[in-house]
Amino acid sequence: MANEARGARGRRFAESLDPDAAELNASVGFDWRLLPHDVAGSIAHAQMLGRRGILPAADVERIVTGLREIGAELAADLADLKDRESPLDSALEDIHMNVEARLSARIGAAGGRLHTARSRNDQVATDLRLYALASAKKLMLELDNLRRALLAQARAHVDTLVPGYTHLQRAQPIRLAHHLLAYVAMFGRDRARMEDAAKRADECPLGSGALAATTFPIDRNQVASDLGFRGVTRNSLDAAGDRDFAVELVMACALAQAHLSRLGEELVLWSSQEFQFAKLPEAYCSGSSIMPQKVNPDIPELVRAKTGRVFGDLMALLTVIKGLPLAYNKDLQETQEPLYDAVETLDICLRVTARIVRGTVFDVDRMWKSVAEGHLVATELADYLASKGIPFRRAHDVAGSLVRKAQSRGVELVALSLEELRAEDPTFDPDVYEWLDPLRAVDRRDVVGGPARNQVLAEISRLEQELG
Amino acid sequence: MANEARGARGRRFAESLDPDAAELNASVGFDWRLLPHDVAGSIAHAQMLGRRGILPAADVERIVTGLREIGAELAADLADLKDRESPLDSALEDIHMNVEARLSARIGAAGGRLHTARSRNDQVATDLRLYALASAKKLMLELDNLRRALLAQARAHVDTLVPGYTHLQRAQPIRLAHHLLAYVAMFGRDRARMEDAAKRADECPLGSGALAATTFPIDRNQVASDLGFRGVTRNSLDAAGDRDFAVELVMACALAQAHLSRLGEELVLWSSQEFQFAKLPEAYCSGSSIMPQKVNPDIPELVRAKTGRVFGDLMALLTVIKGLPLAYNKDLQETQEPLYDAVETLDICLRVTARIVRGTVFDVDRMWKSVAEGHLVATELADYLASKGIPFRRAHDVAGSLVRKAQSRGVELVALSLEELRAEDPTFDPDVYEWLDPLRAVDRRDVVGGPARNQVLAEISRLEQELG
Amino acid sequence: MANEARGARGRRFAESLDPDAAELNASVGFDWRLLPHDVAGSIAHAQMLGRRGILPAADVERIVTGLREIGAELAADLADLKDRESPLDSALEDIHMNVEARLSARIGAAGGRLHTARSRNDQVATDLRLYALASAKKLMLELDNLRRALLAQARAHVDTLVPGYTHLQRAQPIRLAHHLLAYVAMFGRDRARMEDAAKRADECPLGSGALAATTFPIDRNQVASDLGFRGVTRNSLDAAGDRDFAVELVMACALAQAHLSRLGEELVLWSSQEFQFAKLPEAYCSGSSIMPQKVNPDIPELVRAKTGRVFGDLMALLTVIKGLPLAYNKDLQETQEPLYDAVETLDICLRVTARIVRGTVFDVDRMWKSVAEGHLVATELADYLASKGIPFRRAHDVAGSLVRKAQSRGVELVALSLEELRAEDPTFDPDVYEWLDPLRAVDRRDVVGGPARNQVLAEISRLEQELG
Amino acid sequence: MANEARGARGRRFAESLDPDAAELNASVGFDWRLLPHDVAGSIAHAQMLGRRGILPAADVERIVTGLREIGAELAADLADLKDRESPLDSALEDIHMNVEARLSARIGAAGGRLHTARSRNDQVATDLRLYALASAKKLMLELDNLRRALLAQARAHVDTLVPGYTHLQRAQPIRLAHHLLAYVAMFGRDRARMEDAAKRADECPLGSGALAATTFPIDRNQVASDLGFRGVTRNSLDAAGDRDFAVELVMACALAQAHLSRLGEELVLWSSQEFQFAKLPEAYCSGSSIMPQKVNPDIPELVRAKTGRVFGDLMALLTVIKGLPLAYNKDLQETQEPLYDAVETLDICLRVTARIVRGTVFDVDRMWKSVAEGHLVATELADYLASKGIPFRRAHDVAGSLVRKAQSRGVELVALSLEELRAEDPTFDPDVYEWLDPLRAVDRRDVVGGPARNQVLAEISRLEQELG
Repeated sequence: MANEARGARGRRFAESLDPDAAELNASVGFDWRLLPHDVAGSIAHAQMLGRRGILPAADVERIVTGLREIGAELAADLADLKDRESPLDSALEDIHMNVEARLSARIGAAGGRLHTARSRNDQVATDLRLYALASAKKLMLELDNLRRALLAQARAHVDTLVPGYTHLQRAQPIRLAHHLLAYVAMFGRDRARMEDAAKRADECPLGSGALAATTFPIDRNQVASDLGFRGVTRNSLDAAGDRDFAVELVMACALAQAHLSRLGEELVLWSSQEFQFAKLPEAYCSGSSIMPQKVNPDIPELVRAKTGRVFGDLMALLTVIKGLPLAYNKDLQETQEPLYDAVETLDICLRVTARIVRGTVFDVDRMWKSVAEGHLVATELADYLASKGIPFRRAHDVAGSLVRKAQSRGVELVALSLEELRAEDPTFDPDVYEWLDPLRAVDRRDVVGGPARNQVLAEISRLEQELG
Repeated sequence: MANEARGARGRRFAESLDPDAAELNASVGFDWRLLPHDVAGSIAHAQMLGRRGILPAADVERIVTGLREIGAELAADLADLKDRESPLDSALEDIHMNVEARLSARIGAAGGRLHTARSRNDQVATDLRLYALASAKKLMLELDNLRRALLAQARAHVDTLVPGYTHLQRAQPIRLAHHLLAYVAMFGRDRARMEDAAKRADECPLGSGALAATTFPIDRNQVASDLGFRGVTRNSLDAAGDRDFAVELVMACALAQAHLSRLGEELVLWSSQEFQFAKLPEAYCSGSSIMPQKVNPDIPELVRAKTGRVFGDLMALLTVIKGLPLAYNKDLQETQEPLYDAVETLDICLRVTARIVRGTVFDVDRMWKSVAEGHLVATELADYLASKGIPFRRAHDVAGSLVRKAQSRGVELVALSLEELRAEDPTFDPDVYEWLDPLRAVDRRDVVGGPARNQVLAEISRLEQELG
Repeated sequence: MANEARGARGRRFAESLDPDAAELNASVGFDWRLLPHDVAGSIAHAQMLGRRGILPAADVERIVTGLREIGAELAADLADLKDRESPLDSALEDIHMNVEARLSARIGAAGGRLHTARSRNDQVATDLRLYALASAKKLMLELDNLRRALLAQARAHVDTLVPGYTHLQRAQPIRLAHHLLAYVAMFGRDRARMEDAAKRADECPLGSGALAATTFPIDRNQVASDLGFRGVTRNSLDAAGDRDFAVELVMACALAQAHLSRLGEELVLWSSQEFQFAKLPEAYCSGSSIMPQKVNPDIPELVRAKTGRVFGDLMALLTVIKGLPLAYNKDLQETQEPLYDAVETLDICLRVTARIVRGTVFDVDRMWKSVAEGHLVATELADYLASKGIPFRRAHDVAGSLVRKAQSRGVELVALSLEELRAEDPTFDPDVYEWLDPLRAVDRRDVVGGPARNQVLAEISRLEQELG
Repeated sequence: MANEARGARGRRFAESLDPDAAELNASVGFDWRLLPHDVAGSIAHAQMLGRRGILPAADVERIVTGLREIGAELAADLADLKDRESPLDSALEDIHMNVEARLSARIGAAGGRLHTARSRNDQVATDLRLYALASAKKLMLELDNLRRALLAQARAHVDTLVPGYTHLQRAQPIRLAHHLLAYVAMFGRDRARMEDAAKRADECPLGSGALAATTFPIDRNQVASDLGFRGVTRNSLDAAGDRDFAVELVMACALAQAHLSRLGEELVLWSSQEFQFAKLPEAYCSGSSIMPQKVNPDIPELVRAKTGRVFGDLMALLTVIKGLPLAYNKDLQETQEPLYDAVETLDICLRVTARIVRGTVFDVDRMWKSVAEGHLVATELADYLASKGIPFRRAHDVAGSLVRKAQSRGVELVALSLEELRAEDPTFDPDVYEWLDPLRAVDRRDVVGGPARNQVLAEISRLEQELG
């Protein structure tokens, strides 16, 4: 984004830009992402100028046709090139000047009239909001796609028990489906945050000029409506220097990426030799040039690590806007790259994670075995006593003592004899062994949001409904 | 927050906590802020247990009465103490255990039954959400209060012109009201973000247990409704380890504080000898023990600087949750202090800033003088020519040349004679001088969101309506 | 730190500070940590003023005696109070004014002469540097203490094999001592960074005044030398507004805390039921009020989580100084709390971690068993073939195929018969089984920094020498 | 960096990498920066293998010659391409595999032997350290270059007075040279930090293998010495997963960039119409397409804003390493881009800032005028009275009252008559007017680090000596 600076040296300046300064100044290396939005914004602007009689109809037609052609050509060129090496001219600093220069080369003088009644500042602000809106929409789709992948695995594993952990210590048995649904809930909140961020981005700043609007009798609402905006911004000074929508979208990305890092961490843990709960699809793992036995969970590790990147993008954005006086300052150019980076990082990480989730094979036997080891039903023992009238504090203590007894003998609680149980507390009856069955333990947890079979099935159905 | 850990060492543990570990572990030094929420949550929980027949009615009554008394006593004690030095027992680790221990001391055995069907994990999650909701509400009030202060000054300065800046260079004249309204818009977005954050916090997690809900036939919806929540969380595992609501609220605080830093920066600039646009109320300034002439804008500087603090809180929160496996991990205790700090920092900064805004005296004459210096109407000169059919590119160049001419003579554009103007372009007529009147220049910018008088008045009215 | 502001309202100001502004302004709630440094700094300053004849000897004597008494009294008061609730008067804003007011109350007029030839700005800068120097020294001691704890365990586990991991997948066998020495190396670098940070903090800014030094003929070198500084700062403007030493120390803390988070993560992993490599001392674990079987690694989790706090402190500091004009701005007051917080957090985390390391019992059998499972010697198989002239690429492929064969049979490589090996490659001879012995595999890695027994012993000796 | 993963799928893996996963995995888009270091590292490694008899001399010769040719070719290709679009094959993931594949294509089987006794992990660690060392060296040169630019302006402005500010309020007069020397001191500390970071990076990790060193009898010291390293790392596990040197270098960059942001802020302020202290060279400014009068300080604004970027890089790095278990994890690949970005951002910002400093024209008259306005000599008035025996507290109060009197009359202190002075305090004599001369006021501040002429000259000489 070069904004008001470019092209405007003219007779006012004796010196040209220093080459390093030009490199710092140029945004064409990254703002090509704005191309479709820039073209759409210019078309809407030109058509409004025509309708208002500010530009002659013939000029408008030439402008619109020219922009459509240039947009299509450049889009094709950009798509062809790997690594986004650019068909754009970096001497023209930014995507906006590239488009405008091509337009003038193609249609002559009329091209120069397109910029009537707008400034680079409101043009860039408009393009960026359109980009943010499109990005939020895309990310919502990918979040839902990942949620569907989790949901499908949940549906397949309603009857798979797995240890529930707190502090990475086995705590109580739950259903694998219940574990996976926790992530569906998490990414559901991320989706809602994206939606709210989009809601606030959804106001068109075009017409704000460089800072103080324009003297031309433009129709801001018409342009906004043509571009699909919900409304228009209400203060030109604010609108020209506002990048809140970018910050807020990156905030939503940062939290979503943090959630991905939790899932990535669990995939790494679960595919270790120690857990062996999950076998990741090979298409997301790598081997070792040295160690022939290795199957490394590279992609979940990268997804986890990319969190740093998105946190860094957020910190960069916040730092840039701290303490800036009102309206446009060149500092705002530095808000673009963190926005693009956060959006694209989250996008690819959501996509690969969804595919990893779909392809992961859970080791059901190993999970059941883990549920049976580590005294996960100790709580049931205490609950059993409590249900027979023993105060919970004492019940908890008795159960703790029995855990120690089992540990010292190297067995699980279920292996203790009724006599051994009664030695601690005479209340125990043979029906206690039913309580120690993990499946029954899980199904006793029959409240909304709990892991009982019918609760989990109800939640799955609700979410399948939501996610179509 | 000590969660499931505390009180539960019993016979299970041979050793007691190391004193430094206990210091790390204790949260009573900061979680006293949860007191009213903890009491409210416990009352709602006890009443539901009573209604469901899980606790006898007599016990419930004793519990509720006891909690109300203890809540009132502790609140009074906490309010009395400067620096929040605590009536709480740090050996009891957290506010929850302090309340529970006092309750048992007061009402005996019934006190011990309060914790039936809940865990420290869902209790803390509930308290924190109630805190977040109350905080969001408070901050929305303070944001509106600040907006009202800005709006009142805007109403008073509809007819004060001030230079509009970009790049901290004088750009075009605007109304001071228009400048101030930019901040009203900004803080309005902050308010909306708080509201959205509150919306997502507004689900009751009580009943999620330590991670896998509870075996008791509780009524989660009843408790939620009694506590004023909109609904209940839908996955116990997620709910026990979810602090998204804290992160999101701190994100909203961070952006609002960044906006305050922009206003703080401008107050510092505007009260410098170089600008002299604003005289801050002395109650927010300090002198120097060395330099008798100094009136330093200490409070706006501190408001600006506190941005670092809130950004740091956000970074702390994000770092804590990165890569955590599901459900509760002790790491989550570290989410409390950043939340409290961000909320309280923003709260006090909003309050003092509102008062500074109300008390600031703007130097209207100095502003007018500044508008008249620096060729702010050069755009008008170009627009004048463009309105007479000169292509804007050429008009801009002519105006630039005239600026240089005026600068070389050390005068403003309005001081150039018609001959001098015509030497550059014969299109100039005497009516050009009307265009160079800053007030007319501003009023020509008559589009929605622009600085023209009627637009500014309309926006002020709209906002006065909104803000009551 | 109230700097030049305080006490200086006098006749210059009509209004007193707004109470909220006073709260924002006051630093006495945290800067009591500067007490010993403030007293030492003032004594050195007074003595120099005496020697230079700027103050009469009698005054100097009264000042020095008074300061020593006040310092001792306040230190005792501060130590007595839990939670550091304060004997200090918050109306006096900061520790410096508290000391000065007490001094004047005690010794009369002479007390007022202490502030001759200095400003609050250079006084605070001096105190903070003394604090930073003392903190760096303390942290170096604690880092070495932790390194000694790790070293002692390494010495005890020279002959314990443990799987070496990459990507959390078992990779190659190593010695537990070698694993622990990796942390000794890491914390050794942290120590060196502290030392370098201290080196740069070690210049005395006293004499820089508020920004432009002083008109009194002071002897800066004398004061610096009396306070133990290596030298004096060389630019008064820089020195008054320089907090680089704080930022750099917090940077060193952040990296050290990140290292602690790696160790914390491993302690959590290693004490899980899945790994069972380590039994943490109970004094650093907690139980659960619900689940009687739980022994949760709370303290390693908190140590891991505190990383967020220190990263946040660093981000806060960096944000505060971004874009500040030269010399003292009130924003700098906000550099104190992050500094104190980072230092104190790292300090306590180092202390508890050292004790956890000392008290942890490693499960040697479980580790050996883990080394024997997961084909960790697959590399040896490839190396064996390579040593017989087979190109490594093919050797690696053969070994990979044999791993698959073993996996399909559910056995380890050593269980494959010579015929099975030769079916893949005829080069295998019976001596291959010696290569598959993990202990020999480790000892073949006999290069500097490698895990072979003699290398590890040499490194232990070298470090024992260094650490006394 | 693809490390152990690449090329090693072979028969071990049935599936190939998913294309999005491959994109996440590939580092060739950024690690081309390691080319010269990779070639140098491989040459030193091959030569050592030859000397140790691990590789035949003929192979070594072919390898070395091949690497030199490939290094030169690739370097030329990379230099030719704008935007660094790449001659490298992204299917080969990283620069290391690209070099190796080209080598094998050129010299046949011998190429495959180069990787004997090393792993991708220690190879990458070595390359990155060489990059860090070269970068630190380059940045030290640029820091010194900027310091020389500041020093030259200081030399030219020894006798230019300028207001010294605190809180952005005029405080006391100083020399412009003194102001500029503050930055020389600041960037001098940055240089020292770079040097310390380089010192710790300066150990060769080659020979650490994937994590557990190598079974070959290599000579680590020889390789280290050939590559110019000061020594070797002492623990293979630590060395394979250590990126501290990257974090520390980025920390040094972050603080240096923060210093640049302070200078950038002042250049923006000083070139505003309100200050008019400095005219920036046009080659670092831009105009406006709308406003013909604008000369915007774009480059200083960008330099200020880039601070966000480097802070973000640091936060990204810290987040990535938080909580990682020992040795290599794929997460570490994410440490490369923040390192490159921070180094390159600081590098270009230092270069353009040095040129801006050299080309800036300071408005000496305007500065003198500013010194004369705002009662900057009020301190002198108080000092005058103090020198006549009036207690400073009272002297300060008298001066404050006289400031108010002058302000109410709209004049400076020097315009008050002796009678007016004496009305406040009879101690005033005619010699007071000498004290009110700003130049004398500055020269009375004659202590080390102070703004007196001889002190400033001495400091300039000292620095000229240091900087050659």
